[in-house]
Amino acid sequence: MNSVIALLGDFAETERNEWLNHLRAAMPNEQIQPFVELNPTQKKSVEFAIVANPDPAQIAQLPNLVWAHSLWAGVEKIIANFGQGPLQIVRLTDPNLANLMAEACLAWTLYLHRAMPTYRQQQQTQTWQQLPYIAAQDRTIGLLGLGKLGTAVAQRLLANGFQVAGWSRTPKLLAGCDCYNGAAGLDQLLARSDIVIGLLPATPDTAGLLNRARLARLKPGASLINFGRGSLIEQDALLEALDSAKIGHAVLDVFDREPLPKDHAYWHHPQVTVLPHISAPTQPHSASAIVARHLAEFRQSGQIPETVDLVRGY
Amino acid sequence: MNSVIALLGDFAETERNEWLNHLRAAMPNEQIQPFVELNPTQKKSVEFAIVANPDPAQIAQLPNLVWAHSLWAGVEKIIANFGQGPLQIVRLTDPNLANLMAEACLAWTLYLHRAMPTYRQQQQTQTWQQLPYIAAQDRTIGLLGLGKLGTAVAQRLLANGFQVAGWSRTPKLLAGCDCYNGAAGLDQLLARSDIVIGLLPATPDTAGLLNRARLARLKPGASLINFGRGSLIEQDALLEALDSAKIGHAVLDVFDREPLPKDHAYWHHPQVTVLPHISAPTQPHSASAIVARHLAEFRQSGQIPETVDLVRGY
Repeated sequence: MNSVIALLGDFAETERNEWLNHLRAAMPNEQIQPFVELNPTQKKSVEFAIVANPDPAQIAQLPNLVWAHSLWAGVEKIIANFGQGPLQIVRLTDPNLANLMAEACLAWTLYLHRAMPTYRQQQQTQTWQQLPYIAAQDRTIGLLGLGKLGTAVAQRLLANGFQVAGWSRTPKLLAGCDCYNGAAGLDQLLARSDIVIGLLPATPDTAGLLNRARLARLKPGASLINFGRGSLIEQDALLEALDSAKIGHAVLDVFDREPLPKDHAYWHHPQVTVLPHISAPTQPHSASAIVARHLAEFRQSGQIPETVDLVRGY
Repeated sequence: MNSVIALLGDFAETERNEWLNHLRAAMPNEQIQPFVELNPTQKKSVEFAIVANPDPAQIAQLPNLVWAHSLWAGVEKIIANFGQGPLQIVRLTDPNLANLMAEACLAWTLYLHRAMPTYRQQQQTQTWQQLPYIAAQDRTIGLLGLGKLGTAVAQRLLANGFQVAGWSRTPKLLAGCDCYNGAAGLDQLLARSDIVIGLLPATPDTAGLLNRARLARLKPGASLINFGRGSLIEQDALLEALDSAKIGHAVLDVFDREPLPKDHAYWHHPQVTVLPHISAPTQPHSASAIVARHLAEFRQSGQIPETVDLVRGY
């Protein structure tokens, strides 16, 4: 009999139950319990946990925990809490997630490409005015991040007629996409993109990467989509660039604080589209299948799947 | 020396000049003049005209006009004015136009699929609320019209993961798309589609096709996109269905009267997105090349290209 698996996270109760149902269905031979239902003996026995932004105080009550599988792709909060300890963390890399992110990037790229924010403003004043149409092949979309998500996004945008450029920390090659890396490469990408899409994880390297100086390198009137992590962008600098029309529009799905505080300037800014972290919703069905596969491999081989590099941050 | 070609249309002057430049560049050996610049002798000589909703009074001053090439795909106004006469009309079927229409249908399908109107309303009240995500493969998009435009739209939506059904006057086959025709087929398509897209030309058959009875056959909460012609939809019935939430949202780009009158209820309806006829803007460059090719064929063979069927209406 394998030891009990603990589920820990900042779920609402209905959400936790939905995850439990999917996880148990994917692993019918495992015993998966929410942390709050574990007795002291069970807590001692836990070697493996499934986590979603877990409470450090709860993790501390699992003395024999060896590794944990995150249900989210973003693990910056887990690393901040447990990055120094012996806990090994596997993050979710779900091909379905990459597909959803590709769809979201295409959706909000088309939103900007087809001037939906401006047409909405025109509707509010009953203004019938056709804006000049610029063809997709004359628009360059610049992706910050060329990992599994960025690759799927690039392919989807290329298939729909856009020019795509991409930037990553280390050099990459991707068919049809002009790839840049390093500080000079970032400046080049920013200078030629009509829409820049942030897909980077939250790491010490990416915090404030789009600061005032880098935002100033954007093409005049270019737009920004941030679907990675809020820490990428220096907020005050973005608001200034929007106010002075140096940046045309910003679609923001991720923020330093979530939910975005009700008094934040983004909510009211006419050139900002605020989304409540919905670009690529994790789907319990496909995520549970991935956790189940990783656990089955571990049960068979004793090897923990590829874990998060705590220095790199993802 | 070929006879003068007349350009007639309801252009603004800058728009007319832009068209003249593109048409003259595409046909450097032809003499193309705006109607207003023709002298009486030239008017008598005109056999071929390039038209965009031309004034009947001007057409009447061209006694030897044999055929006309429309710069628009929609020819209902020309037919209404000249449908009884001997004038033969060629309409624009521009592959680039089909590509633009496919892009527009994908863009506003994603707009509805990704709940952009609801997230916009949430932003207005600083509401941070994630809506349930329904996968593209679980959404059926129903196309009304499976001609050149509809075919391109179906292929684009399929390539981006949606289920596609289509309806046409006469039976059609299209890979990956469930095809319907006839009155019973229309009811079937309406009953299973999550988003219905109108791509039909304005003809006696399509006027009021989406009347009160047919709108009632839509799935509860389904949405509507109309990129064909305004006459397709019975306006009062649509407003009632929106008010009672039987229809979730309507994206309307075409109207009985354009520009849409400032006092029209559509402008102010929270569940209506009004667009100023921009789904597939005709691009002078590619349209001029098509007119030039058709004219060159005529100059060589004496054969007028396929003309509009005046009874069918397109």
